[in-house]
Amino acid sequence: MNISRAGDLAMIVGEDQRPFIVRLETEGDWQTHRGVIRHKELLGLPWGTIVRTHLGYRYYLLEPSLHDLLLFIRRKSQIIFPKDIGYILLRLSVGPGKTVIEAGTGSGALTTALAWAVGAEGSVISYDRRADMQELARANLGRVGLDSRVTFALGDVAEGFRETDVDAIFLDLHNPHELLPQVKRSLKSGGAFGAIVPTANQVSSLLAALRDNGFGFLEALEIFLRYYKTVPERLRPVDRMVAHTGYLVFARAMLPDQAEPIPTGEADSEEPEIRE
Amino acid sequence: MNISRAGDLAMIVGEDQRPFIVRLETEGDWQTHRGVIRHKELLGLPWGTIVRTHLGYRYYLLEPSLHDLLLFIRRKSQIIFPKDIGYILLRLSVGPGKTVIEAGTGSGALTTALAWAVGAEGSVISYDRRADMQELARANLGRVGLDSRVTFALGDVAEGFRETDVDAIFLDLHNPHELLPQVKRSLKSGGAFGAIVPTANQVSSLLAALRDNGFGFLEALEIFLRYYKTVPERLRPVDRMVAHTGYLVFARAMLPDQAEPIPTGEADSEEPEIRE
Amino acid sequence: MNISRAGDLAMIVGEDQRPFIVRLETEGDWQTHRGVIRHKELLGLPWGTIVRTHLGYRYYLLEPSLHDLLLFIRRKSQIIFPKDIGYILLRLSVGPGKTVIEAGTGSGALTTALAWAVGAEGSVISYDRRADMQELARANLGRVGLDSRVTFALGDVAEGFRETDVDAIFLDLHNPHELLPQVKRSLKSGGAFGAIVPTANQVSSLLAALRDNGFGFLEALEIFLRYYKTVPERLRPVDRMVAHTGYLVFARAMLPDQAEPIPTGEADSEEPEIRE
Amino acid sequence: MNISRAGDLAMIVGEDQRPFIVRLETEGDWQTHRGVIRHKELLGLPWGTIVRTHLGYRYYLLEPSLHDLLLFIRRKSQIIFPKDIGYILLRLSVGPGKTVIEAGTGSGALTTALAWAVGAEGSVISYDRRADMQELARANLGRVGLDSRVTFALGDVAEGFRETDVDAIFLDLHNPHELLPQVKRSLKSGGAFGAIVPTANQVSSLLAALRDNGFGFLEALEIFLRYYKTVPERLRPVDRMVAHTGYLVFARAMLPDQAEPIPTGEADSEEPEIRE
Repeated sequence: MNISRAGDLAMIVGEDQRPFIVRLETEGDWQTHRGVIRHKELLGLPWGTIVRTHLGYRYYLLEPSLHDLLLFIRRKSQIIFPKDIGYILLRLSVGPGKTVIEAGTGSGALTTALAWAVGAEGSVISYDRRADMQELARANLGRVGLDSRVTFALGDVAEGFRETDVDAIFLDLHNPHELLPQVKRSLKSGGAFGAIVPTANQVSSLLAALRDNGFGFLEALEIFLRYYKTVPERLRPVDRMVAHTGYLVFARAMLPDQAEPIPTGEADSEEPEIRE
Repeated sequence: MNISRAGDLAMIVGEDQRPFIVRLETEGDWQTHRGVIRHKELLGLPWGTIVRTHLGYRYYLLEPSLHDLLLFIRRKSQIIFPKDIGYILLRLSVGPGKTVIEAGTGSGALTTALAWAVGAEGSVISYDRRADMQELARANLGRVGLDSRVTFALGDVAEGFRETDVDAIFLDLHNPHELLPQVKRSLKSGGAFGAIVPTANQVSSLLAALRDNGFGFLEALEIFLRYYKTVPERLRPVDRMVAHTGYLVFARAMLPDQAEPIPTGEADSEEPEIRE
Repeated sequence: MNISRAGDLAMIVGEDQRPFIVRLETEGDWQTHRGVIRHKELLGLPWGTIVRTHLGYRYYLLEPSLHDLLLFIRRKSQIIFPKDIGYILLRLSVGPGKTVIEAGTGSGALTTALAWAVGAEGSVISYDRRADMQELARANLGRVGLDSRVTFALGDVAEGFRETDVDAIFLDLHNPHELLPQVKRSLKSGGAFGAIVPTANQVSSLLAALRDNGFGFLEALEIFLRYYKTVPERLRPVDRMVAHTGYLVFARAMLPDQAEPIPTGEADSEEPEIRE
Repeated sequence: MNISRAGDLAMIVGEDQRPFIVRLETEGDWQTHRGVIRHKELLGLPWGTIVRTHLGYRYYLLEPSLHDLLLFIRRKSQIIFPKDIGYILLRLSVGPGKTVIEAGTGSGALTTALAWAVGAEGSVISYDRRADMQELARANLGRVGLDSRVTFALGDVAEGFRETDVDAIFLDLHNPHELLPQVKRSLKSGGAFGAIVPTANQVSSLLAALRDNGFGFLEALEIFLRYYKTVPERLRPVDRMVAHTGYLVFARAMLPDQAEPIPTGEADSEEPEIRE
């Protein structure tokens, strides 16, 4: 049934477009700067309904999408952007039932998406050296009900990951090029590796290290997202956009004892070609 | 166990980087233009292993990722590109257990990704008027073992979708602006709508129709992906890139009887902001 | 001699990177919020010198480049950006000795660049309906000493341009598609036409009108400029960039009595090819 | 008079859009693979006229623009693209009467644009170590009648430029970071320096060297140009585009004996701001 119930996660958006994410309850009030809505009034409604504060202001009641949840993350650090997260999930094949490691945890945006994508049978292990970041991420995951799929591991990944044979590992750290032996010990052979780094210098270091550590199918890329104003009669891009979030680097772990040089991708486009 | 077994889907890649996707069997040969490998020799190996043809040529044995599967789609039509698919999945919240409609089926690239993401508990319904395209897509899905999650519906979506209350609907058709009443009848209220169209004129038409049909939270955007050459000492983008695949348009279905004007997104960036 | 003299235009930049453009004089003071420099002290210095206010703050004394002058334009309206201006000059072949019409004048940024590029033997005619904008532009041109090359024409270009046989015409107006007969009467046959428009709808209208009015070699394009942070050890693009200024449209005026359809460019890249 | 005459440079374009640049003569034939046009028939015509071969095929007679000339350059090496050239001219303030050095000469594309922009009173000095490239460039400049403005200097710029106090220097070489002392000796103080390099590693090296050699106002950037198909009813970008030509780096030469650190630009956009 497509009806709001107590315990559901809801997104409530006013006419100023500012979204709020709340857990629906049977008691209490939801306070806005434009008046109050009693929680009880938000229950038993079809999603997509308009609700009103006691002052008459309109709010829209919606089920939050993954995209909504990502924007809702409380943060102390730069988070990975949705444009990059969507591609990371696809590229690392993070789907139902998979086991994935990420480091560092940060504020938990990618953690949220990974937990969401692996489903109830999957598993995410998230490493970070900072206890405060993991507490923040744990709280963020908890609020959206995905914390049961995540194991938070406090510690320095230079000492290695405890898990082995995981399907994919993603690094959002300043020195991924120094951590590839650790990655290789924990990633299943043939498994997918990914990283995001802000500078071109780091891309160079990481590509060199991947080559030295016997990874194959290296790819480096960046993704731009340009929004348009949604006025049909005056269709045009918005004035300003994000120019850079980070470079994405992907590779596959080849068998460690295969000393022969491994081919390295150098795609000049992502145009899919017919091949079999 | 991370070992190849009969029945597994495998990607075999030679030094020329051309990948082949095969279903491993207990009998028979796998033919290449550089010699033959007996299927039996491909079994019981760790993924990431090098195998050799009877002529001594090396091939890499890998588990295909979702990205690999998408590039492997046999096609008669332009397919949606991975850069767009990753974002569509995230934006439509297509994850484990969801029910999603797409039209048209085309060659089945997006169908494959949707089926992969919804998992065994989810469901994809794919509409197309052309029987030949659906046969092609069915074969593509079948080869990668995802066909059981997909219901192919042959017919003109102008006559409506048979399903109701689905989580999300995505249209890859030339006239999405003419099909919004049908979308609205089948999409759950508050559900996510998306479309891809190649021309700016179609974006204008679609945005106007979304507004007229009571959708909210409209967004239009485009995604660029730029690959880099993976030479650490000479890091630089590739020479040429895909300039355009299509414009992506997203919206949410608001309750049909809510006549008041509904706010429309006009994000000027995707920079997530702290909000609650 | 590369020495500052009275009457020279100078750019003075403090450590906060804020540039000032001043005309050097023999008397008076130049006031900053960090102290005073006497004009006399700015004379007879090699360009590139550091000067100091009476409070000891450093300022750099430079000859302004065309780019500096463009950023210095006082404005009441959106100006055309340098990234677009450079390409417009090249595409319209605006060089020494040429005669060029533009409309509207706006704040005079493109006017400045045109006047600068045509040299002392060239000529720019700039139309605008608004007297206040032309006064502003006239002042802007005057301050940089380029006003003698520009004729300001107050009036509605719907009534036509007074000049004939000009080398190039550029329109920065909301309705260029309605003004092509006027353009054609004043542009020499074979001459270069250009326009900038903010919306895709206007591009469509303009392309259709160009076709209907017998223009040839149509091209539509957009230019992106992405700055990098200039830290060698951490090379990366800046965080945000201009996403859109306008679409540029170019065409050539073909002979008006040549009724046969004229080929229309559809370049899929600007990659120059060897041809002769 | 806007009429073709003997001695004029003409661009002749057939319906296949392939342009030819020819010097009009009083005698002889102009051969195409679709028939012959006698040179005499091309004289005394208004530009923009249609002419026909003896087989009846149509060709358009046009005056070539600077953009046309650049595409017409015969080349043995990668040339700088028009999108970059337009911005370089503006950024280096290359206009009527200026003196500019470039190295290397290459095939002479940038040389052509520089010679065109400085006018009859200006001067271009073009260095290259390879005599064959300079011969090619000399021929290219000669064919378009701009050779009298260019001094070709054969030699290694590591040994220095012979000129001093030039307005601007542009380097299109693999090692600009090693040549800055030479640049500084020949560039007037405050003068404009520019370079194009293909890799991010070179950008890093050059920025570091500029800092070490007392240059100021460093900027690094890249320019994208995206063409659209010119069909009004189906407006959309072309399918593929140039992803990368080179990074552009600009700086100003500050006085060599000013030891204090010089501010370095870090523009986060090219959005001009009102300032004075």
